[in-house]
Amino acid sequence: MPNAARIMQRCEELARHSELAGGLTRVFLSPEHRAASDLVLGWMREAGMRAGLPCLMLGSHLDTVRDAGRYDGMLGVVTAIDCVAALAAKDRRLPFAIEVVGFGDEEGVRFGTTMLGSRAIAGGVEAAVLGARDANGVSVEQALREFGLDPARVPNLGRQKGDVLAYAELHIEQGPVLEAEGLPVGVVTAINGFSRLRARVRGTAGHAGTVPMQLRRDALAAAAECVLAVECVARSDPQLVGTVGRIEAKPGAINVIPGEVDFTIDFRAPGDELRHRGVASVKAELAAIAGRRGVACEVELIQELGVTQCAPWLMAQLERAVAAEDAPLRKLPSGAGHDGQAMSRLTDVAMLFVRCRGGISHNPAEAITEADAGIGARTLLRFIQNFELRR
Amino acid sequence: MPNAARIMQRCEELARHSELAGGLTRVFLSPEHRAASDLVLGWMREAGMRAGLPCLMLGSHLDTVRDAGRYDGMLGVVTAIDCVAALAAKDRRLPFAIEVVGFGDEEGVRFGTTMLGSRAIAGGVEAAVLGARDANGVSVEQALREFGLDPARVPNLGRQKGDVLAYAELHIEQGPVLEAEGLPVGVVTAINGFSRLRARVRGTAGHAGTVPMQLRRDALAAAAECVLAVECVARSDPQLVGTVGRIEAKPGAINVIPGEVDFTIDFRAPGDELRHRGVASVKAELAAIAGRRGVACEVELIQELGVTQCAPWLMAQLERAVAAEDAPLRKLPSGAGHDGQAMSRLTDVAMLFVRCRGGISHNPAEAITEADAGIGARTLLRFIQNFELRR
Repeated sequence: MPNAARIMQRCEELARHSELAGGLTRVFLSPEHRAASDLVLGWMREAGMRAGLPCLMLGSHLDTVRDAGRYDGMLGVVTAIDCVAALAAKDRRLPFAIEVVGFGDEEGVRFGTTMLGSRAIAGGVEAAVLGARDANGVSVEQALREFGLDPARVPNLGRQKGDVLAYAELHIEQGPVLEAEGLPVGVVTAINGFSRLRARVRGTAGHAGTVPMQLRRDALAAAAECVLAVECVARSDPQLVGTVGRIEAKPGAINVIPGEVDFTIDFRAPGDELRHRGVASVKAELAAIAGRRGVACEVELIQELGVTQCAPWLMAQLERAVAAEDAPLRKLPSGAGHDGQAMSRLTDVAMLFVRCRGGISHNPAEAITEADAGIGARTLLRFIQNFELRR
Repeated sequence: MPNAARIMQRCEELARHSELAGGLTRVFLSPEHRAASDLVLGWMREAGMRAGLPCLMLGSHLDTVRDAGRYDGMLGVVTAIDCVAALAAKDRRLPFAIEVVGFGDEEGVRFGTTMLGSRAIAGGVEAAVLGARDANGVSVEQALREFGLDPARVPNLGRQKGDVLAYAELHIEQGPVLEAEGLPVGVVTAINGFSRLRARVRGTAGHAGTVPMQLRRDALAAAAECVLAVECVARSDPQLVGTVGRIEAKPGAINVIPGEVDFTIDFRAPGDELRHRGVASVKAELAAIAGRRGVACEVELIQELGVTQCAPWLMAQLERAVAAEDAPLRKLPSGAGHDGQAMSRLTDVAMLFVRCRGGISHNPAEAITEADAGIGARTLLRFIQNFELRR
């Protein structure tokens, strides 16, 4: 049996590798990410793992957002390792290999990229991405080298179709549905698509004491209207969500009218058309605001990914594992993005959600129970043991 | 005669001491501020200056906002030195000493303090200010030491009343009035008061993909409403201005709903009561926004200074100097803050404004003509030569 206490304790151990004292921040290719990867690799070896082909691939990611919770990503990696250890302990032989991966850059916090790890495995990383830079000017290429990796190998990391039979990921729900219905786990039907935009408003910087209000072209006042426009458009449909997560006003002094403001927009929906409609509405609103205020506003689409459907044949096997665990069956879409989106380019994907407290994620208050971790792990183990190739 | 070409060239030389390549940023107690101070000290010595008492004090400041213009502050220091040099060249003896000062921290960009230089001379710096820290955690005390100064002396720098006969400052207008009326210089009647506030909105951070819009307590959406409320209140009276110059959303990731937002508010008006009314309205608006959105909003007054009247007896002498220069007389209030506000605690103050292009300041596009610099310098020289003690 997988050991839920050990799973919880390993999530704690991983949470110690953080650049944020008293909290968890572990961005892609940071020294903390290196240390977490080494720790996980040790656990994999301890579980008796060796590379083999073709495989059922399990796992999730090890990087975090800033000031993160300790389960988003890590739970899936740690649980998969525990399942392998349980199989090894029983000396159980399976007619396929198992690989456990701890991806990086799922959160896309550091370089403005996203899912570089899973995209590399799926064969979807263009060489240009190596030039992307973090806020300190460090490129992906430099960071890979400092992490102990060879950047030149990145474009060739893609696996062959057929070498990976399927990709299955256990992850906390990060939403309120399972908790509201009193369920420990749920089978994911699809991962919502997203569109991410970068907007820049240009007005005129000036002295906060001398420029009369009617002569101002205040970039931050204009951007404030834009933030509210994003919210208003997202509220127009209950399935749509829209977020401005970052904003920077320049030059950024208490006594200077902001001349330039950069901000980000993130839209998600369970349907591609609904999401596209939201993005188009926001673009039109932003242009209208800029026109009224005499400022310039540029909007650039920086990332987009359509809805990813989970494979029905894998969902059916996960459903049987849930039923055997005597847990009621709940199928639900994922509001959050996951490495499965990138992996679906290579192979069929499935996801199992574990209930989390209050639906809270991307926040230090993220929490799960050991009991739920145990049900999730046993369900995943049952899925692995009974895994049948697609017919 | 003061040399306008030399004044312009010295403003250029000072502008080379910048931490911003291709622009001008020189914050208080930075290495660039040290270099600018040394340069100015050399020019003072070259102009034949020595300390003496009691004095007519002239000058302005040498620190800048970020991405600044090259005249805001510097023109007043450089012009005063040129006036002294002109007097020395004529071997003209006056019945009082002249001191030229190049203050620091007028802009208050680095430590969230303001006018530490002039407040120290005027005897208004409390020892606690030495503990204030910049964005990198460097305290005023450390920075003073690295600048080559002794922090222990700061509380004792205040001059005795009577030792400083008056303080007169030449400065660019930083507003559009003189240009609109085709005038090279103007005599300042009063310096507008200001109130500066720091606001913090606390909502709940969360995953940008999983929290439905109606369950969000988005700190940035709330702050955006607050920014527009500041603008709306400031627009309610043509003499009032209000600015949000800084904003920071935390944790600040594209895929995380902001849980906390900090921003600044700066209000100015030619009347203390009008300004207080503006601040009170904004506080009420912010509380109402926070209440409607279920977020917390704290507002803290961090700096406040009432209107500073220029001394009529000094204004009269400046007016005579302007008339003798054949320039039409224009009296006007200052929308911007100046060291004179701090100096008025010690002695009577006067200010002469020089026209600047488009009223633009706190911006690299700040510009004046050499002809105006010459008229300003000759007016100041005439004021010094004919200076009569208050009767």
